[in-house]
Amino acid sequence: MRVSVLGCGRWGTFHAWYAYRVGHEVTLWGRTGSEHLAELRAARRNEFLTLPEEIRLTDDLTEAIRTAEIVIISIHAQAFRSFLRGLCEHGQAGELAYRRVILCMKGLEIGTGKRLTTVVREELGPAIKPVVWVGPGHVQDFVRGIPNCMVLAGEDRETLRELVDVLGSPLIRFYYGEDLLGTEVGAAAKNVIGLAAGMLDGLSYASLKGALMARGTRELFRLVRSMGGDGETIYGLSHLGDYEATLFSPHSNNRRYGEAVVRGTAGAFHKIAEGVYTAEALMALSKQYHVDLPISETVYEIVAQGSDPSEQLTRLFLRATKSEKE
Amino acid sequence: MRVSVLGCGRWGTFHAWYAYRVGHEVTLWGRTGSEHLAELRAARRNEFLTLPEEIRLTDDLTEAIRTAEIVIISIHAQAFRSFLRGLCEHGQAGELAYRRVILCMKGLEIGTGKRLTTVVREELGPAIKPVVWVGPGHVQDFVRGIPNCMVLAGEDRETLRELVDVLGSPLIRFYYGEDLLGTEVGAAAKNVIGLAAGMLDGLSYASLKGALMARGTRELFRLVRSMGGDGETIYGLSHLGDYEATLFSPHSNNRRYGEAVVRGTAGAFHKIAEGVYTAEALMALSKQYHVDLPISETVYEIVAQGSDPSEQLTRLFLRATKSEKE
Repeated sequence: MRVSVLGCGRWGTFHAWYAYRVGHEVTLWGRTGSEHLAELRAARRNEFLTLPEEIRLTDDLTEAIRTAEIVIISIHAQAFRSFLRGLCEHGQAGELAYRRVILCMKGLEIGTGKRLTTVVREELGPAIKPVVWVGPGHVQDFVRGIPNCMVLAGEDRETLRELVDVLGSPLIRFYYGEDLLGTEVGAAAKNVIGLAAGMLDGLSYASLKGALMARGTRELFRLVRSMGGDGETIYGLSHLGDYEATLFSPHSNNRRYGEAVVRGTAGAFHKIAEGVYTAEALMALSKQYHVDLPISETVYEIVAQGSDPSEQLTRLFLRATKSEKE
Repeated sequence: MRVSVLGCGRWGTFHAWYAYRVGHEVTLWGRTGSEHLAELRAARRNEFLTLPEEIRLTDDLTEAIRTAEIVIISIHAQAFRSFLRGLCEHGQAGELAYRRVILCMKGLEIGTGKRLTTVVREELGPAIKPVVWVGPGHVQDFVRGIPNCMVLAGEDRETLRELVDVLGSPLIRFYYGEDLLGTEVGAAAKNVIGLAAGMLDGLSYASLKGALMARGTRELFRLVRSMGGDGETIYGLSHLGDYEATLFSPHSNNRRYGEAVVRGTAGAFHKIAEGVYTAEALMALSKQYHVDLPISETVYEIVAQGSDPSEQLTRLFLRATKSEKE
C-alpha cells in the first residue's frame, strides 16, 4: 500500500524504514526547514538507521497526504494541535477522512490533559477515527533485528485487523486493543514513570523501581477507570509492557532525563523529555477526575517546581506504613 | 523482643542481622551439620555480611523456639513439610502456637501446588496462623544501606500492625496486605517469571521483558482470582513490585539460572533455582483450577522437559496476532 509518514524525527523515520521493510511504498514528510529532513536528504541516514533510496523524502504536505492510503503521524505531542490547525487552514484536513490515520505518538496535551485523539476530533471533526500505535521497543533494537510486541488500539476492530494484516511482521508482532482511552493515557503516562525511574537511578535507589512499578501502575489504573476507560489496560503492552524500555533501558530518553535532573545535568539535554509535559497534563486530569496521583505529582513537583528529588522520593516510597491498597 | 530465626542461608542470616539492627535480641538456628552454620561460627560472616557478636548461633531447635517471642522461618520451601514433621515428632510444634510465626520464604510445594501456610495448617493444625514476609530487595543492597519496601501479609490486621511496629525501620518500610493467598502465590510465581526473564536475556531478547511483565502478571492475576484470592495482589509489592529484583537485577538467582539454561551452563549451578520447582507446582494449579498459564508452562517445558528455549519463547511472544485480553 502507499504509506506516508508525517514527521521525520527518530520515530517517524523509523516508521518509514519499517513500512518500507514490510513491503509498502513509502513517503516521509518533514516540515520545510526541518534539520532532520535536511540530514536525511543529504546522507539518507540519521544516527539510528539508513533509509533505502526507494523511500521518497518530501516537505510537500499536501502531496504526502494526497498520495497515501495510510497516513502515520509522528510529531511532538505538544505541537499536534497547531499542526492539525495548519492542515485545516491549508485545506488538507478533508483528505485525511479517506485515509487510515495512525498516531505513533505518546503524550497528553499540556494545559488541558486531553488525549491526542480528542485533539483530532476537536480540530478535524468526528469523521476521522485515528488508530493509535504504541508499545515497547527502541528504534536502536528494531534496526538491529530484535523483535518486539506492540499494540494497535482503536474503536473499530475491523480497521484494527486490517492494519495489523498490512503492518505486522516477525519484527513487530501486533496485539490490538479496543480501549483507546486507557491505551493513550497509559502510553503517555509511562514517560512520567520513566522520569521517576531515572531519578531513582540517579539517587542509587534503583532497587526501589520495583515499588515504583507496583505503585505507578496502581495510580494510573485508578485514573483510567475514573476517566471511563478500562483500568486493566494499564497492565497491558501500552503501559506496563513498555516499562522495560522506559524504566530500565539505557536508551530511554525520559529515564535519562530523570537521572540528569537528580544529578543537576538536565541543562545539557537539548530538549525537554516528553514526560515533563505529560506530568503537568496529568495534574490537570488528577484535579478534573478527583484521583490522587502521588507519583506523578512528585515527579511534577521535582521537574516543574524544583523540589528536592531525594527528599520527595524518600518521602514517597519510605513514608509511614500502610495497607497496600490504601 | 526475643527473635529466633530458623535457617541460616542467605536470607535467614540476613533476617537475623536485620532483627538485631532494629533492636531485638536474636538467636540464629541452623541444623546440626549445616555448612552455613559452621561458616558463621568460624568467621561470624558469610559472603554477604558480618554478624554482630551479640547474635547467638545455635543448632538446638527446641531452645531456639522456646526462648523466642517471634519465630522467623527461612528454609527451603521444598524441605518445609519434612521440617514441620520433625518439629511435631520432637514435640516442638506446640510451642509455636504461643509465638508470632513469620515465614520468610517463597515457594509452592512441588507435586501438590500447595501454599506454605497450607502446609503449616496441615502439619501443625489451625492454631498457628503464620504471617508471610515477602517483597523486593536483595541482601546485597540492604547490607549496603539501600532501603526498600516489603510486605507483611496475614489474616489478622492487628497482628500485622504489631509486627510492622517492631520490625519496620528506615531500611525496610513495610506495607501490609490481607490477601494471604495472592501474596503467597504471587511471591512464589515471580521466580518463574524471573527464569523466563533470564532466558530472554540469554537469547539477547531482553527487550521482550516488557511484554513478559504485561503477560506474566495477567496469567497470574487469573490464577489467583480463580483460586479465590484477590487478583490485584499480583500487581502489588509481592509480585510485580519484586520484578526489578527478579527480572532485572544481576543478583537474581532465578534470572541468572534462566540465562544459564539458555547458554547451556546451568550445570555449573550448585543447586537448582527455586523457580524450577515453582514452575512444576504451578502446572498442578493450572490443572486444578482450569487456568491457562502459557508463560509458566513454557518455562516448565524448557527447564523440566528440555524443550528448545529459543523456539518456545519465540512462539510464546511472537505468535499470531490477537487481542491483548484474549
